[in-house]
Amino acid sequence: MANPRNTDTPRALRLPVRPELAGIEPYGAPQLDVPVLLNVNENPYGPSQAVVASIASAVADAAAGLNRYPDRDFLGLRGDLADYLARESGVRVEAEQVWAANGSNEVMLHLLQAFAGPGRTVVSFAPTYSMYPEYARDTHSEYVVGRREADFTLDPGHATAVVAEHQPSVTILTSPNNPTGTALSVDTIVAVCEAALEVDVDGAPGIVVVDEAYGEFRREGVPSALELLERFPNLVVSRTMSKAFALAGARLGYLAARREIVDALRVVRLPYHLSAVTQATARAALSHADELLGQVAALRAERDRTVEWLRAQTHDGRPLDVADSDSNFVLFGRFADRHAIWQGLLDRGVLIRETGPEGWLRVSIGTREEMVAFKDALVEVAGL
Amino acid sequence: MANPRNTDTPRALRLPVRPELAGIEPYGAPQLDVPVLLNVNENPYGPSQAVVASIASAVADAAAGLNRYPDRDFLGLRGDLADYLARESGVRVEAEQVWAANGSNEVMLHLLQAFAGPGRTVVSFAPTYSMYPEYARDTHSEYVVGRREADFTLDPGHATAVVAEHQPSVTILTSPNNPTGTALSVDTIVAVCEAALEVDVDGAPGIVVVDEAYGEFRREGVPSALELLERFPNLVVSRTMSKAFALAGARLGYLAARREIVDALRVVRLPYHLSAVTQATARAALSHADELLGQVAALRAERDRTVEWLRAQTHDGRPLDVADSDSNFVLFGRFADRHAIWQGLLDRGVLIRETGPEGWLRVSIGTREEMVAFKDALVEVAGL
Repeated sequence: MANPRNTDTPRALRLPVRPELAGIEPYGAPQLDVPVLLNVNENPYGPSQAVVASIASAVADAAAGLNRYPDRDFLGLRGDLADYLARESGVRVEAEQVWAANGSNEVMLHLLQAFAGPGRTVVSFAPTYSMYPEYARDTHSEYVVGRREADFTLDPGHATAVVAEHQPSVTILTSPNNPTGTALSVDTIVAVCEAALEVDVDGAPGIVVVDEAYGEFRREGVPSALELLERFPNLVVSRTMSKAFALAGARLGYLAARREIVDALRVVRLPYHLSAVTQATARAALSHADELLGQVAALRAERDRTVEWLRAQTHDGRPLDVADSDSNFVLFGRFADRHAIWQGLLDRGVLIRETGPEGWLRVSIGTREEMVAFKDALVEVAGL
Repeated sequence: MANPRNTDTPRALRLPVRPELAGIEPYGAPQLDVPVLLNVNENPYGPSQAVVASIASAVADAAAGLNRYPDRDFLGLRGDLADYLARESGVRVEAEQVWAANGSNEVMLHLLQAFAGPGRTVVSFAPTYSMYPEYARDTHSEYVVGRREADFTLDPGHATAVVAEHQPSVTILTSPNNPTGTALSVDTIVAVCEAALEVDVDGAPGIVVVDEAYGEFRREGVPSALELLERFPNLVVSRTMSKAFALAGARLGYLAARREIVDALRVVRLPYHLSAVTQATARAALSHADELLGQVAALRAERDRTVEWLRAQTHDGRPLDVADSDSNFVLFGRFADRHAIWQGLLDRGVLIRETGPEGWLRVSIGTREEMVAFKDALVEVAGL
């Protein structure tokens, strides 16, 4: 019923919905009310009382001035994010090199609005995050998908060939990748940045966006693409407070890049896009970075235990396939009927995600108790 | 420096900024720190202690669950907005007929993403809100501007002729209009809705959006376009909590339309676009609607007094021109050098807006004390 364009509908009731949107259902994982939610890579740890109190107090302060428009350039928040990045990765950027919006979604929309759009191409490598084609569609950009290898790594030779062939104005690399959990090697990112520098889009090179939404969950020794910012003027690294900061409900995505890239995004952002309440909430949470990142360490350990446990299981006479993970989720399989497994888990109160290549399933890392519930249910359902 | 595309820039440092964005400065009124801010039609009354306490308490509740994504369809907030509209205008719509986003800006972006875009035309009538061409630009829609009359009303014959000629998929009417303050007559809105029903966009009629951002400030007896929703299936009425609700900092715009129109917007919205914090803040403020609308009555009275006072002034031997206003601002003039007047006021600590047709200035309605400061400064600067 979303798109009553068909000729059975009386003319006055038809809608001029864009042809490419006709019949499409809104994106989104099912929001079901079950005891164990391991489906959308949320952080299972709610903010502590101390964090809640800081947020409430910061918002109360902001509320007194809500009759005024928010600070349009929010350099306070951008400075706090820069400080946090320096602490997390050792890479120092200036406040003016940071941009933020209502979730990584909107950050990515800004990037494609500024640098892609009609007549231009966006490249990514599947299997990967299912929103990328929607960003491309919403900005009328051509979307070209390269491929990842069987182990979900990205072959630099293939990646640079795709970039050379399609001359994308924006190439999106996802590291760690969703839904596979795979971190890219520095060599691969370097190769793609170099290939993008050779692209010719109206006389300019292409941009490379490394989506590090799950960056904080990377294993010891895995570097962040932030370390390459100084070297590549066409590199953008995006992050989010949704995952490591346990702030999915507050919608705060951000990126770091050189200042001229950020300035171009300021042209396409809607004025006052980031509310005073969002700015206050994010800054309050950032002031508790140490506490929140402590939970990240616990989740990484739980993730490693989950990978190990899954790898020890056999199904239909074979060990389970389990992708290496630098994220707060694990992709595992393969099941002849993955939907039956997914449904069986749901029937036992455990919601995971039916996503990734055929036969695979993705489980987000929850608390230890939630992972016990997941394992118990999986043993029953999959007859491990 | 925002768009280093020129050939003086070393190739690696050039950016593939879209050609239509090159050299454009980000939109926005100057954010200056002066005592009397009458430049961006903000409500001068900050939320009361009771409202601040409600918001802080609602956000604290929401904060405990911020590790989870927000309710993607936010029917709770949409229901509250529907209840509010019924109370304010007497027109009852269902929660499913209401849509909301981060400011009217984003509501309008969703509308143009769903119904306009490449190969389609958006019509509006100048002088009007300066963001409309940006929404059109950001969605690659053709933007056609009709004209308002010398008294800033819209001639139905002209408006329907523009619609018939350009076959817009979206026609934007602004009532009360910004920056002129002019409310449209019901007959004009009806005529445009009827003309849009005759438009043919891929076999469907055109949509008409009546932007009522300042709707609550309309004078006694001026109806809302909400009253026409039942009659016109192609009508959308947009509102905001920024102005009457004194919540510009919280960024909450919304619209009412028939359900199928809202469902089409759900396809283009970014998932989870409205944070849990924003939802909590808006619902808390809506629970204080009576108090906040009491301030609207005071602002309307102050607006009428300001119009009356300005009309009694002479400048360069002629009475000032003052546009009728159904808004929380007044457009007045005309000045041979309006910039000098604007600057003179600013030098005296009063920031108004240099906008509208040549020679006019716009002043937002502040508190009684702020309006005294404005009048005193204007008398000095303009030699009234």
